[in-house]
Amino acid sequence: MTRFGFIGMGIMGSAMAANLVRAGFEVVVWNRSPQKCAPLQDLGARIARTPRALVAECPVTFAMLADPQAAADVCFGQEGVCDAMVQGKGYVDMSTIDAATSQRIAAAIREKGGRFLEAPVSGSKKPAEDGTLVILSGGDRTLYEEVEPAFAKMGKRSFYLGDVGQGARMKLVVNMIMGAMMAAFCEGLVLGERGDLDPETILEVLDAGALANPMFRLKGPRMLAEDFAVNFPLKHMQKDLRLALLHGDETAQPLHVSAAANEAFKQARAQGLGDEDFSALLAALRTNSG
Amino acid sequence: MTRFGFIGMGIMGSAMAANLVRAGFEVVVWNRSPQKCAPLQDLGARIARTPRALVAECPVTFAMLADPQAAADVCFGQEGVCDAMVQGKGYVDMSTIDAATSQRIAAAIREKGGRFLEAPVSGSKKPAEDGTLVILSGGDRTLYEEVEPAFAKMGKRSFYLGDVGQGARMKLVVNMIMGAMMAAFCEGLVLGERGDLDPETILEVLDAGALANPMFRLKGPRMLAEDFAVNFPLKHMQKDLRLALLHGDETAQPLHVSAAANEAFKQARAQGLGDEDFSALLAALRTNSG
Amino acid sequence: MTRFGFIGMGIMGSAMAANLVRAGFEVVVWNRSPQKCAPLQDLGARIARTPRALVAECPVTFAMLADPQAAADVCFGQEGVCDAMVQGKGYVDMSTIDAATSQRIAAAIREKGGRFLEAPVSGSKKPAEDGTLVILSGGDRTLYEEVEPAFAKMGKRSFYLGDVGQGARMKLVVNMIMGAMMAAFCEGLVLGERGDLDPETILEVLDAGALANPMFRLKGPRMLAEDFAVNFPLKHMQKDLRLALLHGDETAQPLHVSAAANEAFKQARAQGLGDEDFSALLAALRTNSG
Amino acid sequence: MTRFGFIGMGIMGSAMAANLVRAGFEVVVWNRSPQKCAPLQDLGARIARTPRALVAECPVTFAMLADPQAAADVCFGQEGVCDAMVQGKGYVDMSTIDAATSQRIAAAIREKGGRFLEAPVSGSKKPAEDGTLVILSGGDRTLYEEVEPAFAKMGKRSFYLGDVGQGARMKLVVNMIMGAMMAAFCEGLVLGERGDLDPETILEVLDAGALANPMFRLKGPRMLAEDFAVNFPLKHMQKDLRLALLHGDETAQPLHVSAAANEAFKQARAQGLGDEDFSALLAALRTNSG
Repeated sequence: MTRFGFIGMGIMGSAMAANLVRAGFEVVVWNRSPQKCAPLQDLGARIARTPRALVAECPVTFAMLADPQAAADVCFGQEGVCDAMVQGKGYVDMSTIDAATSQRIAAAIREKGGRFLEAPVSGSKKPAEDGTLVILSGGDRTLYEEVEPAFAKMGKRSFYLGDVGQGARMKLVVNMIMGAMMAAFCEGLVLGERGDLDPETILEVLDAGALANPMFRLKGPRMLAEDFAVNFPLKHMQKDLRLALLHGDETAQPLHVSAAANEAFKQARAQGLGDEDFSALLAALRTNSG
Repeated sequence: MTRFGFIGMGIMGSAMAANLVRAGFEVVVWNRSPQKCAPLQDLGARIARTPRALVAECPVTFAMLADPQAAADVCFGQEGVCDAMVQGKGYVDMSTIDAATSQRIAAAIREKGGRFLEAPVSGSKKPAEDGTLVILSGGDRTLYEEVEPAFAKMGKRSFYLGDVGQGARMKLVVNMIMGAMMAAFCEGLVLGERGDLDPETILEVLDAGALANPMFRLKGPRMLAEDFAVNFPLKHMQKDLRLALLHGDETAQPLHVSAAANEAFKQARAQGLGDEDFSALLAALRTNSG
Repeated sequence: MTRFGFIGMGIMGSAMAANLVRAGFEVVVWNRSPQKCAPLQDLGARIARTPRALVAECPVTFAMLADPQAAADVCFGQEGVCDAMVQGKGYVDMSTIDAATSQRIAAAIREKGGRFLEAPVSGSKKPAEDGTLVILSGGDRTLYEEVEPAFAKMGKRSFYLGDVGQGARMKLVVNMIMGAMMAAFCEGLVLGERGDLDPETILEVLDAGALANPMFRLKGPRMLAEDFAVNFPLKHMQKDLRLALLHGDETAQPLHVSAAANEAFKQARAQGLGDEDFSALLAALRTNSG
Repeated sequence: MTRFGFIGMGIMGSAMAANLVRAGFEVVVWNRSPQKCAPLQDLGARIARTPRALVAECPVTFAMLADPQAAADVCFGQEGVCDAMVQGKGYVDMSTIDAATSQRIAAAIREKGGRFLEAPVSGSKKPAEDGTLVILSGGDRTLYEEVEPAFAKMGKRSFYLGDVGQGARMKLVVNMIMGAMMAAFCEGLVLGERGDLDPETILEVLDAGALANPMFRLKGPRMLAEDFAVNFPLKHMQKDLRLALLHGDETAQPLHVSAAANEAFKQARAQGLGDEDFSALLAALRTNSG
């Protein structure tokens, strides 16, 4: 039986690790706050004392951490991943981190002879629980092939996209489209409301045609109910738009529509909606209509 | 057996009328160029000599015409629809026409005692053939209810949206969202290409996630092959964006993202792409990247 | 001594007519509300009973009216300008009116053998009083040359731009630039404020450099004092941006920056600032920063 | 007689140092390529062998270097400024550098007991020669007061704006407004051309009204002649817009118009105009109109 390490038992990581346990893999987990490992232990996972100890006993380790700082700490900190990294071991960082941090971790792992794969995911809590994430990976190809059976339990699709950096880049492209689509959706809804169209009927019409998509279908009704319970925070969506635009800047690619969407989300931040779900852009647009 | 008139045997109208014939309705057709009626006759439809003659023998008549001018001509011209309109007859104009023309036709029909329904559709050639249009109607409610069985053969969904004008308005909202979504899609594709991501993989990734929708799925592969065979002309998409923005103007509703999309499509027109499919925006964005 | 008629004694017209009187021209005036003619009479102007009577006794008549409707009424109404128009007489409409109304008036004047000049102005109350308007004329060239001495008293510069329509078009170009410049100015001020720069110092810095212009100089200090006393209403500025963009639409000319400015002014309208001076855009941008 | 050091004899620095010499100050100069010091020597300046030697003999030293790297090298390199910095000496960096480099230099100078002033300028070659720059300074106030007589010879206005960083920030605000104004100007010109207005007349009309400014006046005629000889490179203008927008991002300040201008300049870069003057945006807009 394959044994996997899994570092980071937050909302995403615990759901993903649980899917590995349920699939019959032997799983060893670690989390900074140890009590968050308990549910996984109940499911059958073992708990390691430190990242170093975990990596020492697992041929391949996954990590799902909150931000670049946490990802770097786990890797470079005392009793960290790097301390146990040796020839041939694999490290798969599924956190959403910036290119610089990703390159820094990749270089450190490789220097010890290890293999590195970045594998950020598209999808949040629900898909993590259901094992329907979309996994966007870049880095060591042999490692990708080895972990595909595990990816198949965590996600409905996984992609190998090339070198380290290409996974993050793909995620940025997808999120940029997502941000602009959400902005288009919100503008359509408020324009319809202005013209006395029933917003629920607008949702039905959209869902009947060529634009029908899960995001409109799932978020639409909640948005009309002004339920902006956070799934993907608005400020993170705006940050991704900013990063995508900066990538366009580096490559001299004008992106007029995404730039307008970026400013629209900034405006929502200015109205205090940064910590709401990114669909709260609707509330910002309605405010403008005051 | 219910008898329906159908005026306008263009690409859309002939497919829609054929679905009525095949569903077993008695159908009488008319077209300015009579030879276009032949295929329908082969299917079992009868041909009327003039719009007036057609309306005279049908309790309810559908029309699907190329533009507002054609819609007005058929209605107000010599031997036109109005000449035969009497108390209780129904007239369902499914053409995409401006509000003013729609109101003018509605008033004329009502003055004769007739009942009027505007019913523009979302969807083009393929959905017309497959009977999977989305029908957006406004006007006489009793007429809507009477023609629902016919709508059910021409479309997969039909909506009654209120007064004359609300059907056209809903179509504008949908098309505005469609235009901005297409622009977002194109920007994402070119940004990905700039970052050495395989564009076909971008399509796969999008189709695996929460943004998956028929438009991306059907048009995406053709767009990558630079096949912009016209389905919905780019210049018409830009016109709809302009009209939607003007509606926003009347109601003091800022629409930053759609306004940027409108300028992007204008730019594509400036590059000579107005008569291509609206997905040719991709070619315009790639040119910018020269 | 040349005799001129002058129709319309509003804020602009009365100041302009007064400059003609003071320059020694014989001036006959008319206004719908007759009491507004009194100050001109005090200066030495004569009052006509109707537009018709006025035109009957003056070889050349100027008009400065509030809107297209007023301009049309004075021309086509009972006892109107057209009733007295004969071969060779001149009519100079300095109102800001749409192209269609302008063409309609031009056609009516010409049909009677008269000569027509549209001559909208750039500048508002203060330049009207000071005789420093910029006059943008199109139409009959001989008439332009005849009235140049009068233009020289009302404005500091006058331009002959070609056919009827070119005066209005030039005004649209100037106002579009003005709107976008104002938006740029406001964005710079709020960005500076966000960065703890003293806004009065920003004004000083701007006025010391290559961007220094009368608009920033005159409006800037009032804007910082939140004094948006109306000089040119925000809603009119936004209307001019809309018209300029529609002109861009007709000619397939993308205008990304002006389109963004248009939406920004729409947003200010949505916040209830439409009747303030167009510099109140600053207040809208600050609100966004809430 | 006050003695000043001056480091950096590029186009800007040599003109600025020359103005100090001509004003009667004793000036010691240094440049990486020593031959560029010759003209200044001819005017009466002395040449130092290294930055360290220069600082050692001057109580106050100005620097005007090409970019942040050059500014850092001169300061931190072997035989650099820091090596000779002691209690009370002044260092005035007039280069346009990023906040991080500026802070790093400021910290190093202060650690040695020196006084630091950042003083980026608004204006390019001609104002540098004419002594009409606008100087935007931040940092040590006593140093600002001491160098005011020198600033008065290099610029027509100098401003003390607060801490280190505020000079750079003010420059960003001014340049953001400049970029958006240039974009507005270009859009107006092309729209006018599309409407058959004579572009030279548009310049005259603009120069007669409330928008008249030196930038339109000086650059306009060259732009119409497609003379885009570089004064301020387009790619630098776009970089400043990007930095200004990022500042807006940090402070949640939406800047829709400047964001659109940023994308417009990116588009010009995509068309290969990055190394032309920033007024070459006009050529990019005309291309769009193809």
